[in-house]
Amino acid sequence: MSEVSAIQQYMHQLGAHARAAARQLAAADTEQKNRALLAMAESIDAARAALASANAQDLAAGREKGLAPAMLDRLELTPKRIDGMLEGLRQVAALADPVGEVSDMRYLPSGIQVGRMRVPLGVVGIIYESRPNVTVDAASLCLKAGNATILRGGSEAIHSNRAIAACIQQGLRAAALPETAVQVVEITDRAAVGELITMPQFVDVIVPRGGRSLIERISQEAKVPVIKHLDGVCHVYLDASAEHDKALRIAINAKTHRYGVCNAMETLLVHERAATLLLPLIERYRELGVELRGCERTRALSADLVIAATETDWHAEYLAPILAIRIVDSLDAAIAHINQYGSQHTDAIVTENYSNARRFLREVDSSSVMVNASTRFADGFEYGLGAEIGISTDKLHARGPVGLDGLTSQKYIVLGDGHIRR
Amino acid sequence: MSEVSAIQQYMHQLGAHARAAARQLAAADTEQKNRALLAMAESIDAARAALASANAQDLAAGREKGLAPAMLDRLELTPKRIDGMLEGLRQVAALADPVGEVSDMRYLPSGIQVGRMRVPLGVVGIIYESRPNVTVDAASLCLKAGNATILRGGSEAIHSNRAIAACIQQGLRAAALPETAVQVVEITDRAAVGELITMPQFVDVIVPRGGRSLIERISQEAKVPVIKHLDGVCHVYLDASAEHDKALRIAINAKTHRYGVCNAMETLLVHERAATLLLPLIERYRELGVELRGCERTRALSADLVIAATETDWHAEYLAPILAIRIVDSLDAAIAHINQYGSQHTDAIVTENYSNARRFLREVDSSSVMVNASTRFADGFEYGLGAEIGISTDKLHARGPVGLDGLTSQKYIVLGDGHIRR
Repeated sequence: MSEVSAIQQYMHQLGAHARAAARQLAAADTEQKNRALLAMAESIDAARAALASANAQDLAAGREKGLAPAMLDRLELTPKRIDGMLEGLRQVAALADPVGEVSDMRYLPSGIQVGRMRVPLGVVGIIYESRPNVTVDAASLCLKAGNATILRGGSEAIHSNRAIAACIQQGLRAAALPETAVQVVEITDRAAVGELITMPQFVDVIVPRGGRSLIERISQEAKVPVIKHLDGVCHVYLDASAEHDKALRIAINAKTHRYGVCNAMETLLVHERAATLLLPLIERYRELGVELRGCERTRALSADLVIAATETDWHAEYLAPILAIRIVDSLDAAIAHINQYGSQHTDAIVTENYSNARRFLREVDSSSVMVNASTRFADGFEYGLGAEIGISTDKLHARGPVGLDGLTSQKYIVLGDGHIRR
Repeated sequence: MSEVSAIQQYMHQLGAHARAAARQLAAADTEQKNRALLAMAESIDAARAALASANAQDLAAGREKGLAPAMLDRLELTPKRIDGMLEGLRQVAALADPVGEVSDMRYLPSGIQVGRMRVPLGVVGIIYESRPNVTVDAASLCLKAGNATILRGGSEAIHSNRAIAACIQQGLRAAALPETAVQVVEITDRAAVGELITMPQFVDVIVPRGGRSLIERISQEAKVPVIKHLDGVCHVYLDASAEHDKALRIAINAKTHRYGVCNAMETLLVHERAATLLLPLIERYRELGVELRGCERTRALSADLVIAATETDWHAEYLAPILAIRIVDSLDAAIAHINQYGSQHTDAIVTENYSNARRFLREVDSSSVMVNASTRFADGFEYGLGAEIGISTDKLHARGPVGLDGLTSQKYIVLGDGHIRR
């Protein structure tokens, strides 16, 4: 048998097992799923030594392969990260079960009652890069939503992922759930990913977690729907009527609270009548070590602290202490800039003007649109979803932070009393 | 320039126009959209003669090409069908506007308010076969949901579709909306479809309306999400506790109310303790001219009226006066049969047993699951959606009848008062 068909056979087997497990999970009750989640936490806690030694193997191999320090850092399973995994499992166990939730039930003129019931998606394929803790985060959220999971982590974390998977499976067994509810792809060959994303008979949705190139490659080749999370080119727009204090607070927080995150501001837009706000802001940014790249009008205010922005800057997701700044003539120009250059992730207006707030909320076409709040709030925990598996910049199905609801679907239910169609 | 690249250029131009129109439509207010819908109805009403002569051209060409009578029938724009189009436009105008609807708005511990606002999907590509009235039905529903539409009808209806499109565009002009909000693909070459489904930069979702082979081909090749509507292999299960009258009424209605529709029952499942219901049912079906194909146990009851079913019959979507019948031992066996052989479209149980109803609703994995009601109710109008663009058997995004809500998405909105992330 050729290698390709061996990989295909292996992946189809995982898929068939996941499909069968998904049927059992869909019928599992809340208590059983929670029991599994808590048992996973216990078995991870008991396996700290085994996890450390598996992780040490990956780290040694990574060092030998010359992985970058940032990559090695992400790969490391510190005791604190293991604590985080345990805490995450307990939090997911504490969330309300979305499966079976009935909404919008009402009587129709024919006499039937129609509503919608939340149901699992089925089988979720997660493709991620080096962080082994994603294994637990993703699997636990999918399990609570009643889905089976096939996890494909980075090859550099394979020993850690296997060790974590063993703990997960122990937890599943303890709750009498099928071990195949969570499976780790053991083959590190890239062809395994190619199979995973092209077997719609076994997989209902793919969630890739990683850099833009990974996500684009997967979207290009997938035959299974993908919940995509692309760039976060987020904007804050200081409107003419922005209140001084709020504007400064939000503009500083959105850029400098954390630099390497997708909901950090990358471009600051300022109404020309709010340009007086810019001078103190520019000084504060420079004190904090933020490099500023401005339009002509911004540079006219402070050419020594602001370098000239080019067209590329308006598209840039810096993920770094760099900020693009543009002065605009109007709310319309700000909205047009955001809809043209943004990535439909998260954008905020700072304003005291009711009508401008209303228009911004309606007309900015992004997954999160905010008034007088920092873009850093775009997050499943902050939105009260309990946890998130990612932030979707897609429009179909889930948009914005994807929590338990985003990992489920809704079917229609109809109740009658012998009703027939006339 | 090669023909392929000419088609690509043409389709990309349509796409760019649609994308620009979608931005305007997203900001259009309800009154303006309704005005366009009513103006479309007026201009179609005024263009009856032009529509008839365009349609006559298609019919003549179709006869020459030797199209089947059923196909010619679907192609015909009778005065009654034109009335139906006008009525449809008025109904869509009367529906509540889904765009901008805010739900689930609540305060979070950080002090921000988070909710969701319904937004258009953007650009919808509709691919359909011969019925020219789909042009109006699809375009009007998409317009009300704030989406631009690219319509690709069957080549055999091209003159009718062009004439209808002219009326639609007159209506758009009358309401000062961009004509490019609804565009008909003028190229009948199949390569145009190939382009339409592989330009995600211009098209957000594809809705194919047609036979299984069309939908499968599109799903295979698409690089844009597809709202799929595959088979309707619908079941009615008569439980042990089914009430005699309700069972008969529903089993007859689900099969014989209309044969050629996706929500008609194709397989009847009967609990062995309800088998006494089968004899009067079998007689009634035979009176109505329904061919019966049963399992061994069904044939043991009435071998002369029931022919032997094969494995193929459990998978069949007959769309005809043919019914498969199977006697099962238990509710579990019925649910297992449905989940194995069904198409996740619509399935019903007839029962007086509370626990069995509850289990059936939860465990049957179909887009509509019913208790004591005919499968024929699975329909956007019957569910109170106002109209539907199709019935989705997918799980992601829309499941079941897809109305205005299914043609929209939800973004998060956040309201603060200078709130920043700590």
